[in-house]
Amino acid sequence: MTRKPKRTPIWQAIATGLRADIAEGRYVPGDRLPTEAALAQRFGVNRHTVRHALSKLVAEGMVRTRRGAGAFVAARPTDYPIGARVRFHENLLAAGHKPDKRLLHLTRRAVTATEGRALAIEAGAPVVAYHGLSFSDDLAIAVFESLFPEDRLPGIYDALSGTRSVTEALEQVGITDYTRSSTRLTAVRAEATQALHLQLAEGDPILRSTSVNVDLTGRPVEFGLTWFAGDRVTLTLET
Amino acid sequence: MTRKPKRTPIWQAIATGLRADIAEGRYVPGDRLPTEAALAQRFGVNRHTVRHALSKLVAEGMVRTRRGAGAFVAARPTDYPIGARVRFHENLLAAGHKPDKRLLHLTRRAVTATEGRALAIEAGAPVVAYHGLSFSDDLAIAVFESLFPEDRLPGIYDALSGTRSVTEALEQVGITDYTRSSTRLTAVRAEATQALHLQLAEGDPILRSTSVNVDLTGRPVEFGLTWFAGDRVTLTLET
Repeated sequence: MTRKPKRTPIWQAIATGLRADIAEGRYVPGDRLPTEAALAQRFGVNRHTVRHALSKLVAEGMVRTRRGAGAFVAARPTDYPIGARVRFHENLLAAGHKPDKRLLHLTRRAVTATEGRALAIEAGAPVVAYHGLSFSDDLAIAVFESLFPEDRLPGIYDALSGTRSVTEALEQVGITDYTRSSTRLTAVRAEATQALHLQLAEGDPILRSTSVNVDLTGRPVEFGLTWFAGDRVTLTLET
Repeated sequence: MTRKPKRTPIWQAIATGLRADIAEGRYVPGDRLPTEAALAQRFGVNRHTVRHALSKLVAEGMVRTRRGAGAFVAARPTDYPIGARVRFHENLLAAGHKPDKRLLHLTRRAVTATEGRALAIEAGAPVVAYHGLSFSDDLAIAVFESLFPEDRLPGIYDALSGTRSVTEALEQVGITDYTRSSTRLTAVRAEATQALHLQLAEGDPILRSTSVNVDLTGRPVEFGLTWFAGDRVTLTLET
């Protein structure tokens, strides 16, 4: 085994060069990068090597490619902390973003068995479903559906009708504080309606979160399903 | 505002029926569900309504569709906890899965500026890059690249050459314990090589994680990039 460091491969040097161009603001989010042919000429390599470098930047989330349209600098994703204290409005403001929400619909329905388990209520018990869109800096970043157990939170329907803030609505029905007890995350393809709401193409990657918030005594007060646009949100967790 | 619960829409009742079929094992992971036409006939509704029900199950991750091939029951994803103590082998065993790893390559290279910031070392400092595949129950669930700062961890190259366990390798170079200090998550499309390793189609959703592990004094010992197959892994977080 040799202990001599390997020479940097040429594609890696090209990736480093492009990364620096982006870091220094020569290309900003949304910009189209030069074509593979142009980059190959600039660096004096073949297109295969350029493609290798670009695919590295795509893997890092710095660049995204669109079939037939070329490579684009990806928008700086919104960091969204998912620790014990998840507050959409407050967390986005703290990160220097402008948060907003839009209510799509508010309905009352029977809880399914799976949802009921998450909320620790019987299947069929009434829940209020709050379906909406989250925005960061005027860009839709997520579609969500939050369920609130109505028997446990009398008045929650009216409270949610009157405010876009879940924290405020919960306060109005007597929940002065709540914490995140669990979060489950996976990646799925955007469906047609999600794609429409989030201005994505159908099939684009979505970060799907299911989460439970509990009150100070540990009783579940909210079961949330959120579909984050993969290229616009980075969930962050400090432990 | 009426307080009478809304009647359950028919598509929702169909989704509930299919969910029960899956929960009761009538269809198991990998099974193809009946065609839309067959389901429409079974429930006495039109295909649009069936499609609505199926898309709900897809959104929940219970079913996945393949263009032209129909709808399939999704495999039960492997739960992977990402709290303060992330240990691949130990965590998967505890969840009742059979963990395994395969080393793709182990190299020594200069750290980039971004990676260096995560590891709190100068750009250009030597790191050992461990590139591999993770398996759960003999199914590839992730591709990863982990970077170890060599000046801080002398002997780490040899230690990693001799074991597939990062915990063991770190122990051999004097790191008796380490904890996860931060995790960043987003969703991206699978690139060609990732798709090949994970037996996915190019463009399939991937859950990308970047993480930092620190020793007991808070010094970074590992910076990891992991690409999880979206349909096979659920990252879980208890707070």
